[in-house]
Amino acid sequence: MKKEIKGIIPPLTTPFGENEALDTDNLQANIRKLCEFPLAGFLVLGSNGELVMLSESECTQVLHAARAAIPKDRIMLAGTGCQSTGATIALTQQAARAGADAALVLNPSYYKGQMSKDVLVSHYHRVADASQIPVLIYNMPSNTGLDMTADTILEIASHPNIIGLKDSGGNLAKMGNITGAAGKDFRVLAGSAGFLLPALSIGASGGILALANIAPEQCCAIYDGFFTGKLEDAKAMQQRMIRANALVTRQWGVPALKAAMDMLGFYGGPCRKPLQAISQKEENILKETLQASGILPS
Amino acid sequence: MKKEIKGIIPPLTTPFGENEALDTDNLQANIRKLCEFPLAGFLVLGSNGELVMLSESECTQVLHAARAAIPKDRIMLAGTGCQSTGATIALTQQAARAGADAALVLNPSYYKGQMSKDVLVSHYHRVADASQIPVLIYNMPSNTGLDMTADTILEIASHPNIIGLKDSGGNLAKMGNITGAAGKDFRVLAGSAGFLLPALSIGASGGILALANIAPEQCCAIYDGFFTGKLEDAKAMQQRMIRANALVTRQWGVPALKAAMDMLGFYGGPCRKPLQAISQKEENILKETLQASGILPS
Amino acid sequence: MKKEIKGIIPPLTTPFGENEALDTDNLQANIRKLCEFPLAGFLVLGSNGELVMLSESECTQVLHAARAAIPKDRIMLAGTGCQSTGATIALTQQAARAGADAALVLNPSYYKGQMSKDVLVSHYHRVADASQIPVLIYNMPSNTGLDMTADTILEIASHPNIIGLKDSGGNLAKMGNITGAAGKDFRVLAGSAGFLLPALSIGASGGILALANIAPEQCCAIYDGFFTGKLEDAKAMQQRMIRANALVTRQWGVPALKAAMDMLGFYGGPCRKPLQAISQKEENILKETLQASGILPS
Amino acid sequence: MKKEIKGIIPPLTTPFGENEALDTDNLQANIRKLCEFPLAGFLVLGSNGELVMLSESECTQVLHAARAAIPKDRIMLAGTGCQSTGATIALTQQAARAGADAALVLNPSYYKGQMSKDVLVSHYHRVADASQIPVLIYNMPSNTGLDMTADTILEIASHPNIIGLKDSGGNLAKMGNITGAAGKDFRVLAGSAGFLLPALSIGASGGILALANIAPEQCCAIYDGFFTGKLEDAKAMQQRMIRANALVTRQWGVPALKAAMDMLGFYGGPCRKPLQAISQKEENILKETLQASGILPS
Repeated sequence: MKKEIKGIIPPLTTPFGENEALDTDNLQANIRKLCEFPLAGFLVLGSNGELVMLSESECTQVLHAARAAIPKDRIMLAGTGCQSTGATIALTQQAARAGADAALVLNPSYYKGQMSKDVLVSHYHRVADASQIPVLIYNMPSNTGLDMTADTILEIASHPNIIGLKDSGGNLAKMGNITGAAGKDFRVLAGSAGFLLPALSIGASGGILALANIAPEQCCAIYDGFFTGKLEDAKAMQQRMIRANALVTRQWGVPALKAAMDMLGFYGGPCRKPLQAISQKEENILKETLQASGILPS
Repeated sequence: MKKEIKGIIPPLTTPFGENEALDTDNLQANIRKLCEFPLAGFLVLGSNGELVMLSESECTQVLHAARAAIPKDRIMLAGTGCQSTGATIALTQQAARAGADAALVLNPSYYKGQMSKDVLVSHYHRVADASQIPVLIYNMPSNTGLDMTADTILEIASHPNIIGLKDSGGNLAKMGNITGAAGKDFRVLAGSAGFLLPALSIGASGGILALANIAPEQCCAIYDGFFTGKLEDAKAMQQRMIRANALVTRQWGVPALKAAMDMLGFYGGPCRKPLQAISQKEENILKETLQASGILPS
Repeated sequence: MKKEIKGIIPPLTTPFGENEALDTDNLQANIRKLCEFPLAGFLVLGSNGELVMLSESECTQVLHAARAAIPKDRIMLAGTGCQSTGATIALTQQAARAGADAALVLNPSYYKGQMSKDVLVSHYHRVADASQIPVLIYNMPSNTGLDMTADTILEIASHPNIIGLKDSGGNLAKMGNITGAAGKDFRVLAGSAGFLLPALSIGASGGILALANIAPEQCCAIYDGFFTGKLEDAKAMQQRMIRANALVTRQWGVPALKAAMDMLGFYGGPCRKPLQAISQKEENILKETLQASGILPS
Repeated sequence: MKKEIKGIIPPLTTPFGENEALDTDNLQANIRKLCEFPLAGFLVLGSNGELVMLSESECTQVLHAARAAIPKDRIMLAGTGCQSTGATIALTQQAARAGADAALVLNPSYYKGQMSKDVLVSHYHRVADASQIPVLIYNMPSNTGLDMTADTILEIASHPNIIGLKDSGGNLAKMGNITGAAGKDFRVLAGSAGFLLPALSIGASGGILALANIAPEQCCAIYDGFFTGKLEDAKAMQQRMIRANALVTRQWGVPALKAAMDMLGFYGGPCRKPLQAISQKEENILKETLQASGILPS
């Protein structure tokens, strides 16, 4: 059964214990708690999952542990983008074997000057050719330093095994260009809760949202509000989420997201170095912001 | 009578004739033709009005010619942002005397390194203190190279004579932050037709849109569609406008906008140098794009 | 007599008195004091001269006052770059009439997306055609947000009335490309004292340096050291100037330069708003830095 | 015997054969040919060595093969920067065991927003603490999207096991700040042949230069010319190298460098995908440029 990619999907963090050791038990515990909410599925090995900090064998462990905990009726996405086409294919195939429903492939970006449209299209099409599972494009300029254009994305999207896009850039004109020009079955997902409602308004199918790890109910409320015609409610909730979202994404990143998870009864724990825990002062601001937005009880 | 700032407002181009001479007759003729559409009003002396190409006395002529042609029940906005606070105040007061309903003030940006929050807040508050008419903030990072933050904008907005914002940056999370946190009477206007519908979804009151010079009906249809609950129609129209909008804004700029005006029966004419007419090849692409989007009959 | 453009040239600040009134007396007093040093000449109406803050008639006053004070055997350059080609030509011709030896023309940059190589080349060639005095190109990406490429600059430089370049960007590979490829008579001037010696090493003929307003002796020492084979001395002096230079340019800008002038017995005075005086704390750091670098006696 | 880090050092490419298989034989052959020139040493596993394309075990093979071919009296540097502190330490220790003289550590950059001064200083100090061999900082903003400031670099440099810096950013004012402020034994190396001479003029000790793979003689001539007082010769050679250098670095990257190696009798061969061979047209331009600069005989 092929699952439709839509709805709200949290990009899971990867829990670490003492000495930064991988802790898949808490990964599974987090998944189980999040399953109490009407989330469409989960992403593992994304930016919030600290993929770039994991060894090859740790990736395998995460994939299998996650699939074991994610119910069959929920989507499991796996981040599989590496700098080389070969490594990307290898990790994508591993994700498929582990039972992921689709792969989310961040574009290579180290050799920025050489990442022309042709190079990117070839890369994605080779990966899609070699992958047993459908592939989603992942555009994330704030981390990669590269912003793929609508034309590049649309040409990548012409491959039958490429079924969607997560875009974290927040360029809504580009997103509207893509939702308007791509085929009906091509799914576009907001890459940040900061612009979920605007993205839905222009044709997005959902979002892969760091904030959904700590505010699953609120993110789903924006999504449901939009599709059930409660626009004013959706707008009010969207406005209320923006500051909290900014703190756990661009501003303070994964360390803040994990700190918020700890506040909310999930397992956050430490990041791998060089990432450092947020300061006590930042923690206080984070707490106040989560309370002000209704994510954390006052 | 103070007019509410909402709806669709085209930023008028400034017509030039032979030898780049100012042609206010055609400015008035364009306004009269545009008045056939349900536009809320007009902006003169904006970026599309080539303000930076006009002498002080030409600004005065444009202000008076425009007010004479703009009916009293439509808004007249005037772009009055200069690099110095003093010149900005002088031009704002001149706009007030000429009958503008409000001033749209682009932030100074030449001394980028010195444009701190404090400097920008002081600048805007001095202008607002000295202005007989309400002031709107104008944030346009693609031309100024500076992107004012939500915090800066919200602090500027605390002044009672500052009533709104035009934001051309397209950061919808920032826009949602501002619509959520500013007072109820603070109006946020989309600065580009590329993201009009997403902006409305998050609380914008309308848009000041270059595209509204050539597609007033379509821009108004997106606006009306959103506020009358025809979301699917609004979305389809929004998607159809994006490519045409890109050509007459970021990609080919005012020369393309003026070329499109000429195609559509308005007076476009030449820009002042160094701006050059678009090439024949670009003109062909522009024409095809306008036809594909339904702006120009096939 | 045509003067060769080489050596150290300070870009003069424009003094203002009470209520931001233009004060040409102090402009002349500053020039006279600076003439005690072996400076090759002076630039008026540059970025440090707050050109963008001056009215048309104030520009005329500055040009005439400066020429009256600058000895005939020293170069007088005038900044004449405006956003329109027409205004640039007008100001350039005015500078010629006032006795400037050459014009320094900053590229137009407001319509960034349209400033293609062709547009820039045409602009400069029209200005050079219409100018009675030689023209120097001015590339200053930190203020304009545009960095003209070596190819663009070299094509502009092919005009017989375009005799040189001031480059503030600090890309030494580009500078070496230009000094190597342009004709022997094309003069390249460093646009910041931060990289004067590296620029000389790759073929520059001197520098137009904000720091030369407050450290004329030191800037000349780097220049003389390089051309008289005292490389170690030049290097030591260059290293000592970098921190002080950063404060009065990129970091705190013209307000810091004027504050430093006041400390050193020149007339600095206030900037025009929105520029604000540096804080007391910044003034203390500035003073310490000037002392540490030997510009100000301890 | 601790070797002083100075002089000209090529960052070696990693040869691949059919199916992108690692080819250490040709790596060794290239090293042997380059040893005919007065190069100070070699870097393996740098950006030009496609480190981000190599598996963990391939890194080990490269390290051992290189050390076997590099004479004991020449420096062997190894690029060991990974995204996590743990992986960076592991690779650095492996490089030490393989006999590298020092490690060149590129800063982590994936989580750009979190790479504060504190985070970067802690990262480098942990690596330096754990490393048996000295560590050099590597700043390369064009690939990482992050430009470490002089203050950050100087604080990192305070660690006794951190002995130098390769800076590819080309900000010569920053470089002069660092050479002036760091201790006498801290070595600064130019990261690109485009600004080698300017860097030497301000206190650099040499360069780690992609161009040195194909123009070792010319790069050494600039270095020797500077230190033997033949400044005019050094300048002329520096100017002649800039265009060729641009093609094999920023403009066309490693594929162009490998193509040039093939033209010059070294083993270039293919890059790993997604990097693609340069086009025939680009190859022609590259050949002409190499001939024009005297690197390739006409």
